Amino acid sequence: MSDTPDSAVQTVRKYIARHRAAFLDDLAEWLRIPSVSAQPAHAPDVRRSAEWLAAKLTETGFPVAEVWETEGGAPAVFAEWPSGDPDAPTVLVYGHHDVQPAAREDGWDTDPFEPVVVGNRLYARGAADDKGQVFFHTLGVRAHLALTGRTAPAVNLKLLVEGEEEFGSPHFRELVERRRDRLAADAVVVSDTGMWSETTPTVCTGMRGLTDCEIVLYGPDQDIHSGSFGGAVPNPATIAARLAAALHDEHERVTVPGFYDGIAALTEAERRLIAELPFDEESWLATAKSHGTLGEAGYSTLERVWARPTAEVNGIGGGYQGAGSKTIIPSSAVLKLSFRLVAGQDPERIESAVRDWVAARLPDGIRHKITFWGATRPCLTPLDHPALQAVVRSMSRAFDDAKIRFTREGGSGPAADLQDVLGAPVLFLGISVPSDGWHAPNEKVELDLLFKGVETTAHLWGDLSAALR
Amino acid sequence: MSDTPDSAVQTVRKYIARHRAAFLDDLAEWLRIPSVSAQPAHAPDVRRSAEWLAAKLTETGFPVAEVWETEGGAPAVFAEWPSGDPDAPTVLVYGHHDVQPAAREDGWDTDPFEPVVVGNRLYARGAADDKGQVFFHTLGVRAHLALTGRTAPAVNLKLLVEGEEEFGSPHFRELVERRRDRLAADAVVVSDTGMWSETTPTVCTGMRGLTDCEIVLYGPDQDIHSGSFGGAVPNPATIAARLAAALHDEHERVTVPGFYDGIAALTEAERRLIAELPFDEESWLATAKSHGTLGEAGYSTLERVWARPTAEVNGIGGGYQGAGSKTIIPSSAVLKLSFRLVAGQDPERIESAVRDWVAARLPDGIRHKITFWGATRPCLTPLDHPALQAVVRSMSRAFDDAKIRFTREGGSGPAADLQDVLGAPVLFLGISVPSDGWHAPNEKVELDLLFKGVETTAHLWGDLSAALR
Repeated sequence: MSDTPDSAVQTVRKYIARHRAAFLDDLAEWLRIPSVSAQPAHAPDVRRSAEWLAAKLTETGFPVAEVWETEGGAPAVFAEWPSGDPDAPTVLVYGHHDVQPAAREDGWDTDPFEPVVVGNRLYARGAADDKGQVFFHTLGVRAHLALTGRTAPAVNLKLLVEGEEEFGSPHFRELVERRRDRLAADAVVVSDTGMWSETTPTVCTGMRGLTDCEIVLYGPDQDIHSGSFGGAVPNPATIAARLAAALHDEHERVTVPGFYDGIAALTEAERRLIAELPFDEESWLATAKSHGTLGEAGYSTLERVWARPTAEVNGIGGGYQGAGSKTIIPSSAVLKLSFRLVAGQDPERIESAVRDWVAARLPDGIRHKITFWGATRPCLTPLDHPALQAVVRSMSRAFDDAKIRFTREGGSGPAADLQDVLGAPVLFLGISVPSDGWHAPNEKVELDLLFKGVETTAHLWGDLSAALR
Repeated sequence: MSDTPDSAVQTVRKYIARHRAAFLDDLAEWLRIPSVSAQPAHAPDVRRSAEWLAAKLTETGFPVAEVWETEGGAPAVFAEWPSGDPDAPTVLVYGHHDVQPAAREDGWDTDPFEPVVVGNRLYARGAADDKGQVFFHTLGVRAHLALTGRTAPAVNLKLLVEGEEEFGSPHFRELVERRRDRLAADAVVVSDTGMWSETTPTVCTGMRGLTDCEIVLYGPDQDIHSGSFGGAVPNPATIAARLAAALHDEHERVTVPGFYDGIAALTEAERRLIAELPFDEESWLATAKSHGTLGEAGYSTLERVWARPTAEVNGIGGGYQGAGSKTIIPSSAVLKLSFRLVAGQDPERIESAVRDWVAARLPDGIRHKITFWGATRPCLTPLDHPALQAVVRSMSRAFDDAKIRFTREGGSGPAADLQDVLGAPVLFLGISVPSDGWHAPNEKVELDLLFKGVETTAHLWGDLSAALR
């Protein structure tokens, strides 16, 4: 069965309209489960949320829907719906069912776990991050079947919905490695991101990677008197400061040797696509809650956060930090650094370069210990990748043929682990907007956009099935 | 009455020998009073200590011995013994009767407030810092009278023994200013310092000054995500580190403009006197509990801590300092700096230079607040000052004509307030040695040296009376 694009869009919209109310009722039921993974008291709710979702996916039609245990006790949900076509490619959708903590007294106007629709918005913890964006896939795959007349999706559709994303996915990599055979896919679709704005639909093409470390510097065996000894022995707080200060040159470029090795220069096309976005520095600063910009010379703010690597001081501490003064030379100091990485950078090489750089900069009398916490690789899908083009086409249909623009994510996510372990390109399909208030009070999702997500996936599986062959 | 030096020394020693036992009994009685000024529970003991001392000074012969209240509630003791000679100069002795906290469980082998004599050492909290060194003046002035046959000292002798030195003398300056008429003196003798070692008697000639401040830097209005915003906004922890790192150049010289203005270069004679001391880097490092030296190029370690100014980071803090990692850009950071000052430097000018230097180095988007905690001026008595020479001569007699060498103090003390307010040169007469363990468990005083202190003052008042006319 095949439709012209216009009639396909109509078919999908009609199908969605018929199921809209039930879909929202179901989503509300899920949102009522306070699956706060960071709070041990909510561990039973995280489990309940996983079981609820597995049951709902079975009801949706997935022949396989399993709750997968992790070492941390916050289970993930895995579901699978084979295409039936032996040549069909496999797509793995990623999302998470755990949510950030939330309480009325944090500034919520309503109970964060009692969803409320006001106008075109659904307010609840997890409405956008990430239950809403996981859940649109349930109605989406049904709309896809309705559109195509198929009894199974055009791709082998898999879902992996983890339960510990909001406290750093500590066991996710292990889970993916252990289950790599079940998770094998030709592409990963991540639905845990956003769009530029309500009026500028966008597709994210990549995320920065991350490697971070702690450097502890040891000087005197105990805090010593800054009068008796000051000016004659190395002060670990000063040396920590010198390390942090030496991380960047006067152009705000990272000075660690080899740091930029392997990074391809931004192409004119890439820069143009970024420059085309309706960027307003004042509102960006408001989002960043910051009062000025500062970054690598020669790049715009968006290029700096999306396409260029960084070294940031996440924490520094040494000596007396209380009220008033205490004239000591501290015995130790700590420096917490994170490096955001872009395509071409290898976290292991960066780690080794940072270790060497630190060791070479310490004076006699300062011992140190450096610990890396592990790394997330950057991911970036080329603009001309057929799978990315399929996402763009499907989204454009959902958004009434709107021009789809491109963003990237400055942050880093477990999606990169899927890319790494499964060797599959990562696509991003997110319909959240900056005003949705992730991690903040009064989190909401725009219902119009939520159903655009449903619509997009209704078109996407057929399009991807062709693109990935 | 006049003796040859030899017979004078004999006279003094005989007098001391006769009164030695009673002197030690009295000192032990005083040491039993736990006058811990930093612990509110001991406030009555601090008062009792002051009253005990005032009574003892009356018994010693001081016609005036008063307990002076301070705003903090830790009283000082003032005593005065006029010479009777209208042309006699006035000397003010400074010390303190409060002590550091101490408890058996800190590692004391005996009760810190139950003095014990073992061999030639008296163990008790305050034995050296500072009750022992205050108390040798009581027997010293009696020995002086016995030696000279006078009924009053050869100088107008004043004592000021404060009760809050061990928690930073917060009300001392105010007290000195309020009582400046009663305290007026031609010279101040500070007995709250030490000598180089048991075998190297020394006189301290000066202390460094101090000014210290807190700089708080404000960036984003709250901690923000280092992925979403990293590389594009100024990070206050990084900027704090850059300030701290920029404080020194590659020669470890302080870079604040004008910092070294007004400092006279060390003379060859001064450098020779410092170089003559039996300095051993290894044991100095052991005292500093440090594992390497680092300081201003072109100066020895002792020159660096005694005769050169410093900028030290006493504390730095910003962002996440707990276990593991947290990938944020912190909203603020704090930097605690202290500057040790030497003769010629003016704390107010330094404060102003630091304020300007900080303000000029902050990027857009970083606001700041800088607070100075007040300042202590440096003091330095010239080597050829007749009063200093008198101290050297008296000490040499007590130490069997030993060569007296010269030290300085790297720290800063309330002595400088006396110098400032009274406009009098400060002399140091201390007989404590580094092994005495100030502020540490098992504090002790070497009895031989304690009585050398008594002997020195027996000679000193006559010698100073001549030197200060």
